[in-house]
Amino acid sequence: MSSAAEWQLPLWQSLLPIGRTAPAGGYQRFAFTQADAQCRDWFINAAAERNLRADCDRNGNLWAWWIPPGTGSPAAIVMGSHLDSVPDGGAFDGPLGVVCAFAAIDRMLERGLAPARPVGMAAFVEEEGSRFGLACLGSRLLTGAVTPEAARALTDADGVDLAEAMRRAGLDPDGIGPDPELASRIAAYIELHIEQGSALAGIGAAVGVAESIWPHGRWRIDFVGRADHAGTTRLADRRDPMLPYAASVLAAREAAAELGGLATFGRVAAVPGASNAICSAVRAWLDARAPDEAILDEIVSRVMAAAVQSATGHGVTVSQHRESFTPLVDFDCDLRHRLVAALAGRGVAAPALPTGAGHDAGVLAAVMPTAMLFVRNPTGVSHSPAEHAEPEDCEAGVAALAIVLEELACR
Amino acid sequence: MSSAAEWQLPLWQSLLPIGRTAPAGGYQRFAFTQADAQCRDWFINAAAERNLRADCDRNGNLWAWWIPPGTGSPAAIVMGSHLDSVPDGGAFDGPLGVVCAFAAIDRMLERGLAPARPVGMAAFVEEEGSRFGLACLGSRLLTGAVTPEAARALTDADGVDLAEAMRRAGLDPDGIGPDPELASRIAAYIELHIEQGSALAGIGAAVGVAESIWPHGRWRIDFVGRADHAGTTRLADRRDPMLPYAASVLAAREAAAELGGLATFGRVAAVPGASNAICSAVRAWLDARAPDEAILDEIVSRVMAAAVQSATGHGVTVSQHRESFTPLVDFDCDLRHRLVAALAGRGVAAPALPTGAGHDAGVLAAVMPTAMLFVRNPTGVSHSPAEHAEPEDCEAGVAALAIVLEELACR
Repeated sequence: MSSAAEWQLPLWQSLLPIGRTAPAGGYQRFAFTQADAQCRDWFINAAAERNLRADCDRNGNLWAWWIPPGTGSPAAIVMGSHLDSVPDGGAFDGPLGVVCAFAAIDRMLERGLAPARPVGMAAFVEEEGSRFGLACLGSRLLTGAVTPEAARALTDADGVDLAEAMRRAGLDPDGIGPDPELASRIAAYIELHIEQGSALAGIGAAVGVAESIWPHGRWRIDFVGRADHAGTTRLADRRDPMLPYAASVLAAREAAAELGGLATFGRVAAVPGASNAICSAVRAWLDARAPDEAILDEIVSRVMAAAVQSATGHGVTVSQHRESFTPLVDFDCDLRHRLVAALAGRGVAAPALPTGAGHDAGVLAAVMPTAMLFVRNPTGVSHSPAEHAEPEDCEAGVAALAIVLEELACR
Repeated sequence: MSSAAEWQLPLWQSLLPIGRTAPAGGYQRFAFTQADAQCRDWFINAAAERNLRADCDRNGNLWAWWIPPGTGSPAAIVMGSHLDSVPDGGAFDGPLGVVCAFAAIDRMLERGLAPARPVGMAAFVEEEGSRFGLACLGSRLLTGAVTPEAARALTDADGVDLAEAMRRAGLDPDGIGPDPELASRIAAYIELHIEQGSALAGIGAAVGVAESIWPHGRWRIDFVGRADHAGTTRLADRRDPMLPYAASVLAAREAAAELGGLATFGRVAAVPGASNAICSAVRAWLDARAPDEAILDEIVSRVMAAAVQSATGHGVTVSQHRESFTPLVDFDCDLRHRLVAALAGRGVAAPALPTGAGHDAGVLAAVMPTAMLFVRNPTGVSHSPAEHAEPEDCEAGVAALAIVLEELACR
C-alpha cells in the first residue's frame, strides 16, 4: 500500500491518520470509541469550513445541510456513506463516500452553482457492525429495521451495551428509534463507495452504478461440547466442538462454490480457548450471500446439515441464530437510470453492477429512493489495509457525484 | 457439579472460593494475578498454621518445610503440585495435590510421628501455562529446562511479559533460573493429582501410581492468507486461511485415531476476526501426545502435510513452531516400586497407569527421583468445571500420601 499513489486532496489527507494503527496499517474506527469521536469531529469541522449546518440525529448519524434560502421543497438530495471500519480495515470503505460528498459540494461552489433544493451530507453510524455485531445499525434504526429495544441490548466484545456506549460518547440512548420525519425530508440518497471487487477494473471503467445488493445475512452457530483435558481424554470419550466447526467451514465453501454464492467463516471463538484443553464450546459466525434468496437458503441449509451431522457424530449440540438478514435490494429504477443518463450526457460511461455487500443505501431503500456509485478498485481487495483506489479514480468519483448532484439538486 | 458431594476438609473448603467465577463455575487462577496472590496467601497461611517455615524460591515456586531438629541428612521428601488453573478449569487439577500434602502432614502429627529427615510441601508456579503459554514454567526454570532469558520474554495475551508480571506481583524477575542447590536437597518429589481420565474408575481403584508420561508437545501453526470482503470477493480470488485450518483440525483427529495417540486443537485465533471479512490469518495451537516419540512425530507430520496441502490449494502460507516438548518420562523405577509396595503393605492396591498429561513431576524427573499418585476421577473429565473426585477418594489420597510419607521420611 505504501508504494501506491495517495490521493492528495487535503480533506482526504486530514482524515487518513485517524484510527490508523501504523503508517501502512489498517484502521480501527469503531462506533463510539475515541477514533470515532475524532472522525465525528472531522465531519463537523468539514461542514463548518463550508458554512454548512451539522447536526446529529436521534440515532447518532451525522448530517450536514446546505439549505438554500427560499427553497420551498423539503425534498433534499443527500450524499453520504460511513466513517467506521471493520477491524484492521482499509482507508476507503466508507470514508471515500463522505469525502467525495464534501468534495462534490466544493465543485458546485467553485462553479458558482447553487442548489434549487436542500442538499445534505450524511455519515451513518456503525455501518460495519464491527462493535455491536449488527451491520448498518444507524440506518436500520432510522428506518425502523431494528427496534430501539433490540439495539440498546446489543453488546460489544467487552460486554458494554449500546446504551452505555452511547452515554459514554455523550449521546442519549433513550432517544434512538425510527425517524420518519427526517426520512420524509429526503428525496434521494446517493452513496458513493469504493468497489469491493474488481469488476470495474475488468471493464476499464472508473465509476459504476449499483444495480442490486444480493440478499445476505449473518448466522451465529454455537457448537457446544464438553471441556476436557487434551492429554488424557480418550478420543472415544471426547465431545469436541472444534470438529463439527471444521466440518462446517469446509461444507460452507463447497456449498457456495456449487451454488454460485458466497459463504465465509471469518470470526470464531474457542471457549475457553486453552491449547491443552478440549473446548467446551465453539462459537462461529457464517456470512452468506447469493444472487437470490432461494440459493441463499440452500447454502445455509447445507452448512447447517453438515454441522448437525458432524456434531451428532461427536456428541456435540449445535444451534444457530440469524443475527442479521437483508433481502435482495433493487435500487430505485428511475433514479438509477437518471444517474446513468446524466453521467453519459457528460461523457462518463458508468456500467451497472450487482454487489454482494450490504450498505446503508440498501437499508434506506425501504423508505426512500436510493442509488450507489462505485469507484474502481484495481485489485478488488477490501476490508483490508491493502484496499486502494487510485487518486485519479477518486477524482473521477468526485466528478461523477458532482454531475449527479447537479442533475438532481439544481434543476 | 453442584449435585456431587463436596469434600468437607476445612483446608479444602478454604481454597475453593478463590478464583472461582461462579458458585458452580470454573476457575481462573493464572500466575501472578489477584487470584494467584490469594492462593499464595492461602499456602503461606496453611504452612503457618502447622508451624512450618514457608518460602518462595527464586522462580516464584512456594515451599513449606518441616525440618526436624538434628536431622543430619539434607535429603528431603517433598510433596506438592500446583495451584494455578487452565481457563475455566476445575477445582482439583493441582490444588488436590497441595491440600493432600498438608493433610498428610496432619495425619503424621495426629499419629505423633516425626520425620527422620526434612519434609517439604511445594506449589509450582504456572504449571498449566495458561498465562504465558509454557506449561510447567516454575519447574522448568528450577531444572534449567527453559532459560531465564527465554522465560522473561514470554508474554501473556495482553502483551505483558513474565518479567513485568513478576515485578507487579512483588517478585524479582532478574533472579529466575536454575536452582541446583535447592534440587540437590531433595531426595524424592511425590506429586498427588486427580486422574485426568477414567482408568481407575474402570478398575475400581481409589488411587494409582504413575508409570510414565507420554511424550507430548504444543505446536503453533500459522496460516497466513489475505484479508478481503466476505460479500464481494469471488471464491476463486480468495486466500482464506480458515479453510486449511479446518482441514488440519479434521486431519489431526484422523491421524490420532489411526495411530493411537491424541491430537487436539483447543485454541484458535482468527485475525482480524470480523464476521464480514475473510481472515488475513488464523493462528492455531496443536496439542499432540502419543505413547512414543515416533508415533508423535508421525501424527504431527500428517497434520502438517494436510495443512500444507490445503493451504497450497488456497494460496495460503503455513508455518509451524514447536512451543513446547516433553519427551517420554519414565518415573523413577525404584521409587515407584517402593510406593506400590508400601501401599500394598497397608492393604492399598494402587495400579500403575501411564498418562498423557504433563506434570511438574515429569519435568523434575530430570534432576531428582519423582513419583506420582493419582486419585480416581469417576467421569474422567478434567480441565473443566465438571472435574470431580468423590470426598472418600480424596481421603484415600490423603491416606495413601501419608503412607508414602511414613515410608520415605520416617525410616
